[in-house]
Amino acid sequence: MQATKNIKITVISGTNRKNSLTESVATYYSIRLREKGCNNQLLKLVDLPSDFTVSALYENNGKNKAFNRFREVIKASEKLVFIVPEYNSSFPGVLKAFIDGLEFPVSFNKKKCALVGLSKGIRGAILGLSHLTDIFHHLGMYIYPFKPYLSRIPDNKIASVLENELYAQLLEEQIEGFIHY
Amino acid sequence: MQATKNIKITVISGTNRKNSLTESVATYYSIRLREKGCNNQLLKLVDLPSDFTVSALYENNGKNKAFNRFREVIKASEKLVFIVPEYNSSFPGVLKAFIDGLEFPVSFNKKKCALVGLSKGIRGAILGLSHLTDIFHHLGMYIYPFKPYLSRIPDNKIASVLENELYAQLLEEQIEGFIHY
Amino acid sequence: MQATKNIKITVISGTNRKNSLTESVATYYSIRLREKGCNNQLLKLVDLPSDFTVSALYENNGKNKAFNRFREVIKASEKLVFIVPEYNSSFPGVLKAFIDGLEFPVSFNKKKCALVGLSKGIRGAILGLSHLTDIFHHLGMYIYPFKPYLSRIPDNKIASVLENELYAQLLEEQIEGFIHY
Amino acid sequence: MQATKNIKITVISGTNRKNSLTESVATYYSIRLREKGCNNQLLKLVDLPSDFTVSALYENNGKNKAFNRFREVIKASEKLVFIVPEYNSSFPGVLKAFIDGLEFPVSFNKKKCALVGLSKGIRGAILGLSHLTDIFHHLGMYIYPFKPYLSRIPDNKIASVLENELYAQLLEEQIEGFIHY
Repeated sequence: MQATKNIKITVISGTNRKNSLTESVATYYSIRLREKGCNNQLLKLVDLPSDFTVSALYENNGKNKAFNRFREVIKASEKLVFIVPEYNSSFPGVLKAFIDGLEFPVSFNKKKCALVGLSKGIRGAILGLSHLTDIFHHLGMYIYPFKPYLSRIPDNKIASVLENELYAQLLEEQIEGFIHY
Repeated sequence: MQATKNIKITVISGTNRKNSLTESVATYYSIRLREKGCNNQLLKLVDLPSDFTVSALYENNGKNKAFNRFREVIKASEKLVFIVPEYNSSFPGVLKAFIDGLEFPVSFNKKKCALVGLSKGIRGAILGLSHLTDIFHHLGMYIYPFKPYLSRIPDNKIASVLENELYAQLLEEQIEGFIHY
Repeated sequence: MQATKNIKITVISGTNRKNSLTESVATYYSIRLREKGCNNQLLKLVDLPSDFTVSALYENNGKNKAFNRFREVIKASEKLVFIVPEYNSSFPGVLKAFIDGLEFPVSFNKKKCALVGLSKGIRGAILGLSHLTDIFHHLGMYIYPFKPYLSRIPDNKIASVLENELYAQLLEEQIEGFIHY
Repeated sequence: MQATKNIKITVISGTNRKNSLTESVATYYSIRLREKGCNNQLLKLVDLPSDFTVSALYENNGKNKAFNRFREVIKASEKLVFIVPEYNSSFPGVLKAFIDGLEFPVSFNKKKCALVGLSKGIRGAILGLSHLTDIFHHLGMYIYPFKPYLSRIPDNKIASVLENELYAQLLEEQIEGFIHY
């Protein structure tokens, strides 16, 4: 167990939208991990350089210092948690562009991953997490099968999630399970 | 038939990578449409403003003039053709971020769409086109069911595609079918 | 429009479970089509021969007279409506086995299709309809993009669906739209 | 390691078609596991009772003795390997109907699973394995991310697979990896 707690976990806030619910949930997730004795860090896509889709991809892969800090964090992580809002019935394009700029296979291969879906509508990002599962399995990542789909969140406040007892419990169960995964 | 040929078609090169095979295929597709009497235009994601994921999304939605030109082209189109390379077992993140920045429902609702998949590997972007189909159906678009998956393209030259007789024929069949869709 | 109304529509109740909500919704759908002047027929998978997965597939393809009646109905149809309950996060296996026993490409190619999802849980068969879309696109069918996902149906009575004003309206909108598709 | 080798593994031949390549691959997989010291058994869907979609589902769930033997094997297994042919761009309907007749959550929850795709065409059952992944994740199963897609198999002989050095190697890598998963 001690070993588990020393594993390097990164929680990724999966959108570059400012003041997002996604970031609030990611922050909450990170705090709960720490309260359970698991060191972890938060990686916020809102901090991505604004031109990373040009300056950090393709012929510029690896050349953007600000983006490289993100690459190093992912590379050094052993477990990854992605908090994923639903944009147009899938994950945010920015999240996939971020993935497209990372190093392969070292970023994901044989690592462990948990996924959380969020939406204002009724779907809870279920298709987005299915799409991400296709991607991450292709990249060799072990995906924790229990994926909370948190739907109908009325505003951008974490309280809206936690006041829903079912949602609070789903997150807690995933966190507990993923620590021991 | 005359009416069909006056319909506004846009062919989208679905990556911002420079000198991509995707762009070559999109250009070829556009030329073939024109040779068949169908006016159309090419929209290249390589021309997107480099910071559009910040300057054209969320609170800045609609505020980036360079991005707004893309929005207007999509809005004014009646049929859309997406040429989609496979990045990490799905579509490019940049393509989805582009979609995330458009206007809804007017950009896609009740329009007609064709999809072409490209890959260096063996998959031909089949999962990426499945993911895109989920997205575009959600956005109300009619998708032409015949989707060429062009795999194992050895380099970035359109000749590599057209020298493969099967691939040349698949593209021709889709173009013919989509004109009358 | 007269022509549209003479088009041969078949509504398929997508499970062989007895007294299912699926069958109730399919019956309702069929009645509403008729009330709008569209001749159609109901095809119930509950009427499939009990051993069709052996007696009508593979080397026995086309040899089971009872199953062949189903094949003929599908072949003669121009538009198909599938009412699909969620079983284990996808469509019922029986529905796919039924599809596997049909004739290709004549059963589906270039036909038009509408999909309705049903579930007791919160998902409304959204993944099942995504999977079916992959299958039917591969088989060349035009899929109406608007797909009602009816979730949290408390029992097997159609009244439970229709009492939900949103669900009644979603079905009505799809029926209206599909008639003119 | 000794413990790993005593784990109960079941290899499932995922179609009820007679003399199928699927069964040949499943048999080969089982033999290779045994040669590596892993006890395992083969479960062939070709042995399913011909009327199981009626006599073993819904109100008859658990009442078909022949089907119950399948249920007991799955329940008692700790690791499952599914060999999955591509039928109409997804898994066989019979395989999903088989899953629909099992006990939940005990059949799959928290077990480990490997998937192999087979096709005569170019797709290697990639969409079918994606659909199955959605289903098995929902049912709580840990899925080994490395999934061989064996495409363009010219006939029903295992030799056709093994003569392809790449395919033989992909199977061997999965078997080795899954033993230690």
